[in-house]
Amino acid sequence: MKLTILGFNSAIPTVRSHPTSQLLVTRNRHFLIDCGEGTQVQLRKAQAKFSKIDHIFISHLHGDHVFGLIGLISSFNLLGRKKAMNIYGPKGIKELIETQLRLTESHKSYSLNFIELTSTQSELIYEDEKVMIYTIPLYHRIYTNGFLFKEKTRLRRLNMEVIEQYPEIQICDYQNLKMGKDFVSEEGKVIKNENLTLPPKHSYSYAYCSDTMFNMNVVPIIEGTDVLYHESTFLGDLEDLAYKTGHSTSLQAATIAKNAHVKNLILGHFSNRYTELSVFRDEACSVFPNTWLPEELKTFDFKDICNILE
Amino acid sequence: MKLTILGFNSAIPTVRSHPTSQLLVTRNRHFLIDCGEGTQVQLRKAQAKFSKIDHIFISHLHGDHVFGLIGLISSFNLLGRKKAMNIYGPKGIKELIETQLRLTESHKSYSLNFIELTSTQSELIYEDEKVMIYTIPLYHRIYTNGFLFKEKTRLRRLNMEVIEQYPEIQICDYQNLKMGKDFVSEEGKVIKNENLTLPPKHSYSYAYCSDTMFNMNVVPIIEGTDVLYHESTFLGDLEDLAYKTGHSTSLQAATIAKNAHVKNLILGHFSNRYTELSVFRDEACSVFPNTWLPEELKTFDFKDICNILE
Repeated sequence: MKLTILGFNSAIPTVRSHPTSQLLVTRNRHFLIDCGEGTQVQLRKAQAKFSKIDHIFISHLHGDHVFGLIGLISSFNLLGRKKAMNIYGPKGIKELIETQLRLTESHKSYSLNFIELTSTQSELIYEDEKVMIYTIPLYHRIYTNGFLFKEKTRLRRLNMEVIEQYPEIQICDYQNLKMGKDFVSEEGKVIKNENLTLPPKHSYSYAYCSDTMFNMNVVPIIEGTDVLYHESTFLGDLEDLAYKTGHSTSLQAATIAKNAHVKNLILGHFSNRYTELSVFRDEACSVFPNTWLPEELKTFDFKDICNILE
Repeated sequence: MKLTILGFNSAIPTVRSHPTSQLLVTRNRHFLIDCGEGTQVQLRKAQAKFSKIDHIFISHLHGDHVFGLIGLISSFNLLGRKKAMNIYGPKGIKELIETQLRLTESHKSYSLNFIELTSTQSELIYEDEKVMIYTIPLYHRIYTNGFLFKEKTRLRRLNMEVIEQYPEIQICDYQNLKMGKDFVSEEGKVIKNENLTLPPKHSYSYAYCSDTMFNMNVVPIIEGTDVLYHESTFLGDLEDLAYKTGHSTSLQAATIAKNAHVKNLILGHFSNRYTELSVFRDEACSVFPNTWLPEELKTFDFKDICNILE
């Protein structure tokens, strides 16, 4: 699982920083999370595999999270895309995009499927054989969801050194072994699965929480995830302003991370009033040490930041 | 009159090029022309005086000319703008913007005045004491206007060397002299205006024509302008494709420039299929020598390219 930060600024785009957008790549699936103005160019700069994106997740309909979506959709059209695109976002996102397509007289080469969200409870919104995605209800000035991406448990790994000692085990038996079944020979001899296989590789998880005020309700939903991105628009001294504007401080982000026993915290969505960002990390580290600062076009490889040997 | 090219690419934004947008500054008025995605950041890069823009002109509702408008409008709001903003564009632009403002729950700190255009004849859409702006009906796949910006004739300049020889001429007389009136002393002595003043400075004009197929109907409207920007999406060998897509070739742009007796031609809106742009200039120069290529963030000072001594 790898996360590329395309932009992490709040509110107004500047020459140096782009509004929020992230690309999560896991098990050969490419998920785009939020899409501020300029995201399509950031994807190019990141040398992302544009055409592999089939699912876009929009947390809420504030401009710094969605104004780049119509441009991306239009460029996919001009590039001759044929595959359907799935867009998950708050109720209203369909009207937002379709009004623009109608008025700009855009004739699409591919279909758009809108999955409009209205629930205030966490719900499963995507599932395939390898990945599940849930909403994380957030607490902002407008209806907002975070998203929880979870790899399903992987198959067990074949212990070839042992398996090769049993000539009766054929290649066609491997899939059953990976799925945890014992080996039973034609003569009825049983070899326990745990003697033939190793535990599966780690299944990663990622929780995306932006924008939101501090709310402990998210803790049970994101319990134990490998990486949590949590907005921290302000430093701790502006907790009142954070509450008023529906945002969090770095201390609050760290408190969520600590209580949810996540392994890593990435901060972001900093207010433009701050020029030096290391203070956000310093403040959060006082509560939760494994805190990272985002960088534009930086890719976090979860294997590395979780110190998992594969 | 100065024109800053913010972007001149057609269709899809790339890492190196932005879609169409230009900033025209004349007589201390700042006019924004078209507003593709990323325009607000280009304005920052150009160190433009953001807050001085009170009038935005949108030629047509294709994304590469308008997708940056909602972001710019939102940023003006976040920056606390109070002055009204006037937006000139095809019928539909009001719905395009207002739908987005409603769905993103944006509460504006300033008012937006939409001047929706429907005429297929050139019309005066803006006038103040120094500048007039007319539409230039264009011929594209969707309703499109170019824009003609004309400075009004300036005041005559005082010839101070002569005036100082007449002690009876007071400072309070200067305005009448600038307006071309003769000086009449209290005793009834008349001094001819032409003896006291010099001709006014040159009044500049700029014609913006994008996007359009080749059509000689624009020629009488833009006759004699100092600078013409005319799209040239393709080179001359793709004239058929240009016709089919509602665009022009560089030869056609130059033909318009020549027939309209403009002083300078700037090309732009090149198809992404071309990497080397000097061929556009070479081709156009064979018909119309005073042809310029655009460069991102380049400012054309009309005084310089028109060789006018002030």
